[in-house]
Amino acid sequence: MKKNSTSLRVRLPVLVFALEVLVVVLYSVFVTYDDQTNALLQNNKTQPLENTVYQDYPFFADIQVMIFIGFGCLLAFFRRYGFGGMVFNFLTATFAIQWAILVQGFFHFYYDGQIHLGVINLINAEFACAVVLISFGAVLGKTSPVQLLVMALLEVPVFGVTEWIVVEHLKINDAGGSILIHLFACYFGLGVTFILYRPSLNEGHSKEGTTYQSDLLSVLGTLFLWVFWPSFNCALTLRGDDQHRAILHTFIGLSASTLTAFALSALLSKNGKLSMADVQNVTLAGGVTVGASVDMMISPAVAYVLGMLGCTACMLGYKYLSPFLARRLRLQDQCGIHNLHGLTGLISTIAGICAILLASEETYGPSLYQTFSYRAPQQGDPQLGELQNISAVGGVLTGLVLKLPYLASPTDEFCFDDELFFNVPLDEDQASESQEPRCSETQITNHQYILQSKPQQQPAETAE
Amino acid sequence: MKKNSTSLRVRLPVLVFALEVLVVVLYSVFVTYDDQTNALLQNNKTQPLENTVYQDYPFFADIQVMIFIGFGCLLAFFRRYGFGGMVFNFLTATFAIQWAILVQGFFHFYYDGQIHLGVINLINAEFACAVVLISFGAVLGKTSPVQLLVMALLEVPVFGVTEWIVVEHLKINDAGGSILIHLFACYFGLGVTFILYRPSLNEGHSKEGTTYQSDLLSVLGTLFLWVFWPSFNCALTLRGDDQHRAILHTFIGLSASTLTAFALSALLSKNGKLSMADVQNVTLAGGVTVGASVDMMISPAVAYVLGMLGCTACMLGYKYLSPFLARRLRLQDQCGIHNLHGLTGLISTIAGICAILLASEETYGPSLYQTFSYRAPQQGDPQLGELQNISAVGGVLTGLVLKLPYLASPTDEFCFDDELFFNVPLDEDQASESQEPRCSETQITNHQYILQSKPQQQPAETAE
Amino acid sequence: MKKNSTSLRVRLPVLVFALEVLVVVLYSVFVTYDDQTNALLQNNKTQPLENTVYQDYPFFADIQVMIFIGFGCLLAFFRRYGFGGMVFNFLTATFAIQWAILVQGFFHFYYDGQIHLGVINLINAEFACAVVLISFGAVLGKTSPVQLLVMALLEVPVFGVTEWIVVEHLKINDAGGSILIHLFACYFGLGVTFILYRPSLNEGHSKEGTTYQSDLLSVLGTLFLWVFWPSFNCALTLRGDDQHRAILHTFIGLSASTLTAFALSALLSKNGKLSMADVQNVTLAGGVTVGASVDMMISPAVAYVLGMLGCTACMLGYKYLSPFLARRLRLQDQCGIHNLHGLTGLISTIAGICAILLASEETYGPSLYQTFSYRAPQQGDPQLGELQNISAVGGVLTGLVLKLPYLASPTDEFCFDDELFFNVPLDEDQASESQEPRCSETQITNHQYILQSKPQQQPAETAE
Repeated sequence: MKKNSTSLRVRLPVLVFALEVLVVVLYSVFVTYDDQTNALLQNNKTQPLENTVYQDYPFFADIQVMIFIGFGCLLAFFRRYGFGGMVFNFLTATFAIQWAILVQGFFHFYYDGQIHLGVINLINAEFACAVVLISFGAVLGKTSPVQLLVMALLEVPVFGVTEWIVVEHLKINDAGGSILIHLFACYFGLGVTFILYRPSLNEGHSKEGTTYQSDLLSVLGTLFLWVFWPSFNCALTLRGDDQHRAILHTFIGLSASTLTAFALSALLSKNGKLSMADVQNVTLAGGVTVGASVDMMISPAVAYVLGMLGCTACMLGYKYLSPFLARRLRLQDQCGIHNLHGLTGLISTIAGICAILLASEETYGPSLYQTFSYRAPQQGDPQLGELQNISAVGGVLTGLVLKLPYLASPTDEFCFDDELFFNVPLDEDQASESQEPRCSETQITNHQYILQSKPQQQPAETAE
Repeated sequence: MKKNSTSLRVRLPVLVFALEVLVVVLYSVFVTYDDQTNALLQNNKTQPLENTVYQDYPFFADIQVMIFIGFGCLLAFFRRYGFGGMVFNFLTATFAIQWAILVQGFFHFYYDGQIHLGVINLINAEFACAVVLISFGAVLGKTSPVQLLVMALLEVPVFGVTEWIVVEHLKINDAGGSILIHLFACYFGLGVTFILYRPSLNEGHSKEGTTYQSDLLSVLGTLFLWVFWPSFNCALTLRGDDQHRAILHTFIGLSASTLTAFALSALLSKNGKLSMADVQNVTLAGGVTVGASVDMMISPAVAYVLGMLGCTACMLGYKYLSPFLARRLRLQDQCGIHNLHGLTGLISTIAGICAILLASEETYGPSLYQTFSYRAPQQGDPQLGELQNISAVGGVLTGLVLKLPYLASPTDEFCFDDELFFNVPLDEDQASESQEPRCSETQITNHQYILQSKPQQQPAETAE
Repeated sequence: MKKNSTSLRVRLPVLVFALEVLVVVLYSVFVTYDDQTNALLQNNKTQPLENTVYQDYPFFADIQVMIFIGFGCLLAFFRRYGFGGMVFNFLTATFAIQWAILVQGFFHFYYDGQIHLGVINLINAEFACAVVLISFGAVLGKTSPVQLLVMALLEVPVFGVTEWIVVEHLKINDAGGSILIHLFACYFGLGVTFILYRPSLNEGHSKEGTTYQSDLLSVLGTLFLWVFWPSFNCALTLRGDDQHRAILHTFIGLSASTLTAFALSALLSKNGKLSMADVQNVTLAGGVTVGASVDMMISPAVAYVLGMLGCTACMLGYKYLSPFLARRLRLQDQCGIHNLHGLTGLISTIAGICAILLASEETYGPSLYQTFSYRAPQQGDPQLGELQNISAVGGVLTGLVLKLPYLASPTDEFCFDDELFFNVPLDEDQASESQEPRCSETQITNHQYILQSKPQQQPAETAE
């Protein structure tokens, strides 16, 4: 097996089967049902309709749509990397959730020597999965599926530890996960991409653009994320009015950031036209910005203002900060996660701290002490810095692992190119241009397989 | 700033920021939480799981999918106006909901000097938003985003007043909103398009067709609308069996109109083939037709017949009425809203009146007086005429406003063309045709932005 | 009317209107509301929020997404048969559900001389519809919409009888429907395709490939099926912990089969690249494999192993069995339903029998007797063989009916080609190649219709 080959033939199955064996063994030893899924614990006093599955499953399903369809479509924006964006998202998310069930299980659902499993664990695992997918955004198109699985393998435990520290020890109120999820994911992803720096990509890459169709598909992903974001931000809040407020604020924040994004897109473009990249990304900023205070009594107007602020920071980041980071700091942040998750996450954190400092019994009544098990963290800022450090260092170390040989890392030339890892069908126009009958060059079986060889375009190292 | 320039650089941000300031000021002065979202009003007797959010949010989310994804994809059917259809729908819907929260808030949720906000307000606002989007269908491809925002700004209050009159004073039973929503939206949209008449478009336009991909995307939108339409029609009915019936009838009505649409599409086409435009639009007619009587005891068979009738009227409208309206009455109804929402809305109204006239305690039992707070409106017809007049006049006046200068109205030549308002990526085949390397003509930054200039295709007035 | 014409002009409307009249008459005579939808049966003790609609509707809506959007997109993978895949799925599913409401109604919801209707009937009808759509997969691209409606007309009653025997008499525990739905559908579909054998298609067909866009759309369909599959597998289980387990196991099974599918796709491809056909189909195998035991206490680890096993069988089937079946046994299984539903269904059945044999009061507690109204079926295997026979024979007989004249069966040449049954828009590149202005060759009306004639490509028999 050649060290730098990008053939997945041996690498991917070996890694996947190893991970699967690991997961199966750990599941069979450690994972059992929780109180709500164990038949043995139900008796004739159990009210089946009071099972927590009816509270949790709707939110779980909504977040599944965000993870697999929202992210999947959003990441399919590159001209010839639609398969990669959508399908590697599918693969990475699937493994990340499996793995997070174990990792978070040990931290949060472990007692009597077992991890106890219900749909609530899956929701938590989806949050960990979102972290991995956000980080993935920084290195989209520059990593092999093997590298992505390794990244998920390493990022989930680092996140799990951090989450455990934050939730159990610092007791930060962070309903929408703006601090934990978005900031962690952002700095981890930046750490990884810092190490995976490819100088030649700063000159631009022939496959790095979009097409009409890929832009539409990506906007479709944005819309799925937009529509279901309230479910994401409220899934783990307290039930009742807290969850109700979380839904309202997320909707209002997104709504404000969407209007603002259109205005700024037109304002900052050279020719007074809208850019689809802004519609795809910047519209979503409000969902992150309201996150840390999403269940508090911040008032609808403040949620609106937070959406506008987050959007503005995100937009300016895309326009002025990202090019600077790429050229000066070796941070090639492919999807601009520093803008959509980093800058907005910082604003969200500040807003969250203010909301806690301003919280009073006058506004919340007796439920004040239920919503916040503690009061304003004096030491908020330094701890935030620590979180950033932990995640960035974790990202850097992960990046170093991803640089090891045998991980099928794509060459610069085949970045953003589905040809490298997929059997890509010939397109209609190409097919009709070639005068020879279609079937002769295609191995057609009785189903939809179409395996074609375009040897002239293949990377030399494919053969293994 | 040139009067007729179509550059959005100044126009769009100025309008959006003005609207945002207006909204923020009004939200901060007038909008507060309602009983279900205010932490202060919860106490130790509050059952969190009885919060109304659990009744309302699932329907809210379903309707969000319809508004942002269903409408968005459906309106993306034009060959080169997919961005416009999907993205202007996004922009317009976002603002319309923000604005409707205020307008409807003053009419329906205002007490103690404040508008009280919960997810139920958002559902109502989505209905107002649907009105705007239906009207948008009449002028799709012929209006700038600036004009669309102005249209939403004017249509929502006119609708708000009408809704208030109908619901509070006439007490019409109109669960699915066929009378209020579909008829109002239709005649308003026709009023607008009457004023925005462009004679040259009657000769056809080179960009007015569809492509294979755009037709598929549009059908996808239809399917989302189709699947979630029961949620739309039942969201505001009484809970319990009324809502249950509304779901059944909507499903059956849509189902009947779908079969009928396929039959009529084949029957009325010259070559015995199906037309995708029929599949995209006419299949949905049943959802409107059952609307006004959707929660009554009309029986499943009658729901089926209503679906067939609505579909037939809609189909004949597309085939014979729309061309006539366009050529003789200056009504260029781009998506045929008069067929899908007007004719079907009229049938629905008649069916609703019949259902009320036939309602008896024998069929409904004691719940008769709960479902209908009144009995059959003798004066039904003249009032319906008034509704149509109000909305048509509102549309005409709005159309006149949209003809004011500085609103970036597209020239005839650039109707149905994304080039006017978007930075459109070069397509693959075009890109490969140009022999020079891709990156030289593209300003590639470290993320997905792709700004290209195709000056020969630009309208002259873009520079501002 | 020519016997072998493929024009739908007379055939489709005649059949559809006949079916509609049949359905309307039967609905008006036999179908009424059930206890939960009948206003007359509610009184002042009725708790509206306890109406079963709130238990059933969320699952109904999820399965609607699977049926109309998931299947619709998944089946749109062919290069030039996207309309056919998505739209014939729409048509066939719509009729199948209408029809199943009647057929299953007579078997399961008939008392007092009437079929009693609620959302629960719709969920059952969706299951029957899924059966038809799976069978459709075997003959995709080789059948006219007329033939598909006839197939649904015949398959639903055969399924209804079988279901009635299995559920009422054999009392098999089959929560996810792996035995009933997947196995029945598979063998029925194979029976049909056996009769509709077209020798020339074994040589490959020029339209049988995919494109970049069609592959992406198809993966999108897969993702919708994947995300909502837990709702499918749990919709008809007992409420409470049974349903909770069904969701967990389905998720875990799918998750395991997805990872395995990626590994095997790379391992078994000649050049070490992933195949989109595998991503579209094989990833879903786990959802079927866990089906028969999905609500039992099989443990998360076993659900994982079942997902891996099902995926492996499915993958090997695609790779080695399907080509053999096509060439030797005249079984041209277009979408490989024998792999995705047959082989996996068999594994699921075996797993289900084992789970029942191993079930003990020690694991389940008193709920053992609730979950299983009987104990392990000794005669499991022979009965399974009977089920396969019934469905295969039903399929063969249906296939013979579909070979009758006047059903618009496509010629070999026009298989997998939307030109035959749709007015297909010219694509952009084709349009720009033809130098004449676009509007001259298009009959443009005031809405989106675009009727074009490309006579040189039309089948000779279109004219009727």
